[in-house]
Amino acid sequence: MKVHKIAVLAGDGIGKEVMPEGIRAVDAAAKRFNIGIEWTSFEWPSCDYYLKHGKMMPDDWKEQLDGYDALFFGAVGWPDTVPDHVSLWGSLLKFRRQFDQYINLRPVRLLPGVPCPLANKQPGDIDMMIVRENTEGEYSSVGGRMFEGTDREFVLQEAIFTRTGVDRVLKFAFELAQKRPKKHLTSATKSNGISISMPYWDERVDAMGTSFPEVRHDKYHIDILAARFVLSPERFDVVVASNLFGDILSDLGPACAGTIGIAPSANLNPERSFPSLFEPVHGSAPDIYGQNIANPIAMIWCGAMMLDFLGYTEAHDAMVAAVERCLVDGPRTPDMGGTASTTEVGAAIAATI
Amino acid sequence: MKVHKIAVLAGDGIGKEVMPEGIRAVDAAAKRFNIGIEWTSFEWPSCDYYLKHGKMMPDDWKEQLDGYDALFFGAVGWPDTVPDHVSLWGSLLKFRRQFDQYINLRPVRLLPGVPCPLANKQPGDIDMMIVRENTEGEYSSVGGRMFEGTDREFVLQEAIFTRTGVDRVLKFAFELAQKRPKKHLTSATKSNGISISMPYWDERVDAMGTSFPEVRHDKYHIDILAARFVLSPERFDVVVASNLFGDILSDLGPACAGTIGIAPSANLNPERSFPSLFEPVHGSAPDIYGQNIANPIAMIWCGAMMLDFLGYTEAHDAMVAAVERCLVDGPRTPDMGGTASTTEVGAAIAATI
Ligand SMILES: CC(C)[C@H](C(=O)O)[C@@H](O)C(=O)O
Ligand SMILES: CC(C)[C@H](C(=O)O)[C@@H](O)C(=O)O
Repeated sequence: MKVHKIAVLAGDGIGKEVMPEGIRAVDAAAKRFNIGIEWTSFEWPSCDYYLKHGKMMPDDWKEQLDGYDALFFGAVGWPDTVPDHVSLWGSLLKFRRQFDQYINLRPVRLLPGVPCPLANKQPGDIDMMIVRENTEGEYSSVGGRMFEGTDREFVLQEAIFTRTGVDRVLKFAFELAQKRPKKHLTSATKSNGISISMPYWDERVDAMGTSFPEVRHDKYHIDILAARFVLSPERFDVVVASNLFGDILSDLGPACAGTIGIAPSANLNPERSFPSLFEPVHGSAPDIYGQNIANPIAMIWCGAMMLDFLGYTEAHDAMVAAVERCLVDGPRTPDMGGTASTTEVGAAIAATI
Repeated sequence: MKVHKIAVLAGDGIGKEVMPEGIRAVDAAAKRFNIGIEWTSFEWPSCDYYLKHGKMMPDDWKEQLDGYDALFFGAVGWPDTVPDHVSLWGSLLKFRRQFDQYINLRPVRLLPGVPCPLANKQPGDIDMMIVRENTEGEYSSVGGRMFEGTDREFVLQEAIFTRTGVDRVLKFAFELAQKRPKKHLTSATKSNGISISMPYWDERVDAMGTSFPEVRHDKYHIDILAARFVLSPERFDVVVASNLFGDILSDLGPACAGTIGIAPSANLNPERSFPSLFEPVHGSAPDIYGQNIANPIAMIWCGAMMLDFLGYTEAHDAMVAAVERCLVDGPRTPDMGGTASTTEVGAAIAATI
């Protein structure tokens, strides 16, 4: 039996509370499907570590993590003590770039048992995959400030789109669309307002489209696309977007499907040259930390995506089925209208698996 | 009686169909409230004009329009013949910049009679003003492409935030919040991912906030803010945002409040050094053009905002009341579930006024 080495990076806040439940569920699936998993916990990245060492991670973080098959990531951020752009650029965004996790993949599904904020939607009506570029684009620290402190002050902020970076995420998205029944891909753009990067993005979408004649593809400007997510989410299948637009859509999509509290995401290096990272969409949620009421479902769903990526599709499906059953039958944490604790929900799902 | 000179720029597609109804409604209000209005129609900007002259407007457009008190604008764009970035950068975006219309103001309200896509929301639950920066930020044609046509190809896209540009939109937004009962302002940011421009934006928000101690202000990252628009729109009052984020939120907000088909917007130069421009949020809608079924309500609501800006608050209120009555009692265009024509709806609203 091959043993997969997984690095456990629980991070801050509720990351520390949901992580044990994620591990418990993966262990249950590993037992049932005979998968070898070896967990190793790290106290970094975290804001606690930052307070002690003045940085989010040790200098040799890359060497320390490079041998792992995957990074199981809770949440990072504690804005009261460390500003978000410090904690995140010092951890999550570093992983994405340095481990070349250029795909951020987020399934968005309206599931039975989850109250939907949209009127008249049934489970199954929302079922999409958001494929977000995860290493470049609008997320950049290139640029600067001039005439600082005077009335003429201004800042320049660069967005950077490379052909390599754009084409590889488009290829991944088209391949994914090709595999799905609807074979439909929507690209998010804003080429009518942002006049260099977005026309370029559109151009590359059209070029990639010629290699996937079976995939029907269209494009929407991000403003109207956001509106469409609310008005007619059923019309989307695979949605591909730049770093920023993907970030927005992958919070908006889960909100339309009920809650961002249960949404998982995978930061993938499809070539497996570096470890991929699996993290809930929710953050560290300082407001509810310490009460053992955080919903562990996103973390557990991340575990399922991790096993899928490691090649265990059946284990993935069993874990997702257990999550779906828990959403219908309970137990439920307070965010889902119940009174169960993080631990109770985690234990119930692990038992089902 | 002072006579206000209004330039009528109907533009393309349904812009040409809703414009007569906008004029009819404003004329009705002008008659009732004794306001002098003089309309002058222009065949540009439009894609028809582009096909004849190779540009969206004549070279002396600025001189021709500069003496008007306001620009009443339908919609521009006909993607089958002129690419959107050509038609829009050649018209609307030029007006915004050259006439320094640095405020884009969009009221978002859930009105009686409008079916809401969100479950369990009542009229009144959504009532916000979106204040969007309208001249700089992410909308820029500064940047370029390198290594064109090779694997190393990349593009750089600059976003530009000036202290003048940021502070004046923030000041407008804080002043507006100060006048409203809730005195609450929310700023859209993404300083955890976009690490130069957005931290600068946050910094200016905090600085401006010190001059408005009565206004409670908070900030949300754009991803979670978009999610909150769907999950709890009632918590927002005035929302201030950069050009791009404001663009997204002001389509998303109206979608949450039922339809972008009736949403108005004002492109304001508050100093009145140049004419301000009033345009529906909907575009030229090539798919329904020519059938006389476009909903004229956004155009009429724009007329109301125009009269308000010209100083006629009562006329504004009467026009909005007439729109509200029409939404409840009909007649309705097909997008609102009715069978009435553009002309019938326009005539009914004008009669009410
Ligand atoms: C048409 C487009 C350039 C424009 C914008 O993005 O500003 C429109 O979406 C708007 O909101 O007025
Ligand atoms: C925390 C933040 C930097 C991050 C992002 O914007 O990428 C988060 O919103 C996400 O989507 O993973």
